[in-house]
Amino acid sequence: MSSSNPGAAVAPPDWLDAIAWDADGLVPVIAQEAGSGDVLMFAWMNREALAATAQRGEAVYWSRSRRRLWHKGEESGHVQQVLEIRTDCDADVVLLTVRQLGHEPGIACHTGRHSCFFQKLDGGRWHTTAPVLKDPATMYARG
Amino acid sequence: MSSSNPGAAVAPPDWLDAIAWDADGLVPVIAQEAGSGDVLMFAWMNREALAATAQRGEAVYWSRSRRRLWHKGEESGHVQQVLEIRTDCDADVVLLTVRQLGHEPGIACHTGRHSCFFQKLDGGRWHTTAPVLKDPATMYARG
Repeated sequence: MSSSNPGAAVAPPDWLDAIAWDADGLVPVIAQEAGSGDVLMFAWMNREALAATAQRGEAVYWSRSRRRLWHKGEESGHVQQVLEIRTDCDADVVLLTVRQLGHEPGIACHTGRHSCFFQKLDGGRWHTTAPVLKDPATMYARG
Repeated sequence: MSSSNPGAAVAPPDWLDAIAWDADGLVPVIAQEAGSGDVLMFAWMNREALAATAQRGEAVYWSRSRRRLWHKGEESGHVQQVLEIRTDCDADVVLLTVRQLGHEPGIACHTGRHSCFFQKLDGGRWHTTAPVLKDPATMYARG
């Protein structure tokens, strides 16, 4: 089994059955960058998304707003290569270790920032703490 | 403002209003360890929990199962000192940077492990990857 494709070798349904899917059939997912340890983003997966993530070795989420599978980077090219898939003690949260591809440094956020977690509380106010690395208008103009 | 108590100086309601609380009035919360960058756990907060977290400088979650505020470590002594509070681009997820107190190395998981994310997918099966640092039976026997 390639380390970049953690579930591809077998991928029987039983490891998916171990997940405690919520009432909507979803599980929250945290994407953490390999190396830096930065938490890049948070999203959701259904069973199909998690199976596809393991099979492709790239993050496939469930878009709750668009109600469809969302292969991260499908428009922007900012694909997440999945190195590890973990779940927690209750098996109701998934943690991915990813390589954020398509730009250096990696851009996980739709605002063009490295991480989605760029707002920091300080003195009772939220402050933007990270620069836009790429204009979002150019990220989603791939035809 | 002390860096260990990110919202204490002012803590007016407006920074709490910026959070996109879900239909149940909750927001998902990721706790990440300062220094190591390890993702320790995932939980939920309501408005009161997030306000209390900022005010105390210690993580206070909302227990969905017990339907009450849960000052992390209240039984085990494994309190999380909060160094930073962040939110994401959509302000619908919170990321805490914490120091996991009460044991060295820190124990965030109720199973007695460092992190809750100790189950790793490999070859189509979940494998336990982290040792129990302390017997949970001794963690919750504080009378």
